[in-house]
Amino acid sequence: MSASKAITAAILVIGDEILSGRTKDKNIGYIADYLTNLGIDLSEVRIVPDVMEEIVAALDALRARYTYVFTTGGIGPTHDDITADAVAQAFGVELYEDERIINAMLERIKPEDLNEARRRMARVPLGGDLVPNPVNKIPGFRIGNVITMAGVPMIMQAMLDSVAPTLETGVKLTMHAIDAGLPEGQYATPLGDIAKAHEGLSIGSYPSYVDGAFRNQIIVRGRDPQEVAATVGEIETMLADLRAKLKG
Amino acid sequence: MSASKAITAAILVIGDEILSGRTKDKNIGYIADYLTNLGIDLSEVRIVPDVMEEIVAALDALRARYTYVFTTGGIGPTHDDITADAVAQAFGVELYEDERIINAMLERIKPEDLNEARRRMARVPLGGDLVPNPVNKIPGFRIGNVITMAGVPMIMQAMLDSVAPTLETGVKLTMHAIDAGLPEGQYATPLGDIAKAHEGLSIGSYPSYVDGAFRNQIIVRGRDPQEVAATVGEIETMLADLRAKLKG
Repeated sequence: MSASKAITAAILVIGDEILSGRTKDKNIGYIADYLTNLGIDLSEVRIVPDVMEEIVAALDALRARYTYVFTTGGIGPTHDDITADAVAQAFGVELYEDERIINAMLERIKPEDLNEARRRMARVPLGGDLVPNPVNKIPGFRIGNVITMAGVPMIMQAMLDSVAPTLETGVKLTMHAIDAGLPEGQYATPLGDIAKAHEGLSIGSYPSYVDGAFRNQIIVRGRDPQEVAATVGEIETMLADLRAKLKG
Repeated sequence: MSASKAITAAILVIGDEILSGRTKDKNIGYIADYLTNLGIDLSEVRIVPDVMEEIVAALDALRARYTYVFTTGGIGPTHDDITADAVAQAFGVELYEDERIINAMLERIKPEDLNEARRRMARVPLGGDLVPNPVNKIPGFRIGNVITMAGVPMIMQAMLDSVAPTLETGVKLTMHAIDAGLPEGQYATPLGDIAKAHEGLSIGSYPSYVDGAFRNQIIVRGRDPQEVAATVGEIETMLADLRAKLKG
């Protein structure tokens, strides 16, 4: 790991049920926080339906571009669970039935219940590694830079814990939040000037609307903690000057 | 509107703060529900950072493909608010300053506070229409099939209400949920057979993990209510047979 190399990631959420609104995604925000804490930059997210060509096209676009691609959803036993097929197709490899997964299933079900549908969950793209989870014992997998996880949040989170120690991580971003205490329009121009002077930092202004009033936060993010601290100082001085001027 | 024509949509969420995990998106699920109720199929979602080329590339990919593209975020007064610029660039048009927006702002701020940053919020791509919101009076806009909305949920929701009557809508999907009451692996094969026999329907099986146990729901969706009802009947018979067999 070098300090200058950014490690990037994308999330690919696979699921008609998210697009229809019936299920509300709980994974994107969780993975975003998780990756930020690892020093991995989440750079893009896509949500696509349970359609083979859509999944393969998104996989190919994202895996060519980012260090890691995390998929969620579509790895169960039913006909609409086609993520393993899509990953295998994207990598141009076959699926094999993993004996370890079959054995894990046989610890929980009777041999006569190991039907064709359940065997689908033991299929892994050739060359893939398993991503275990202690919750239901049926693992996700990783092939190349693509990590395929379950859509059920508790299982997805366990898989993320399993795969995290194997990931290359970057320098964790230093983040500092400033409560502006002023309308965005009052400080937007001087804040833009400060942002221009520190192009290596990410400086954003985020309004939220709480109890009928706007609350504006300025967020400064960067890999150099000293530059972040110095820039936060500049912004706080700028805001204090503005507040004094508006009072005067 | 013809019954056979599907009306489709994509959401483009613009915001570093969603990708960093600091802000949790609350708009995707809301818009998904809203469009489903209008009979519009949400077909794809992307989340991209506050980077001009990324926003323009995503806009171009999505607007060429879907009936509508809804963007959220990046329309405030600060330097990181570049959505209007990106939409104008994607459409190859200039931005103009809309007098109506300036006047709306002057109802809430003093003329001397109408600075350069605030004027940014009055910029609309040439040929665009305003999408009003009663919350803070500063509208979003629509140009071609792209609808540009705020990221703050309360304002976004008001803009969606404003634009909804102008949208072409499709036949609302009929949706029916069945509590399977069985492990997915038990019914996956016969459910797959039923799905194959009804390719015009979307049939999915969705596990959730609640209080240490899986709860599986089978969802049948389609535009023909009679076909949905008949298929739900087939699935219920299949499940009842399976349950009887497992007991016996």
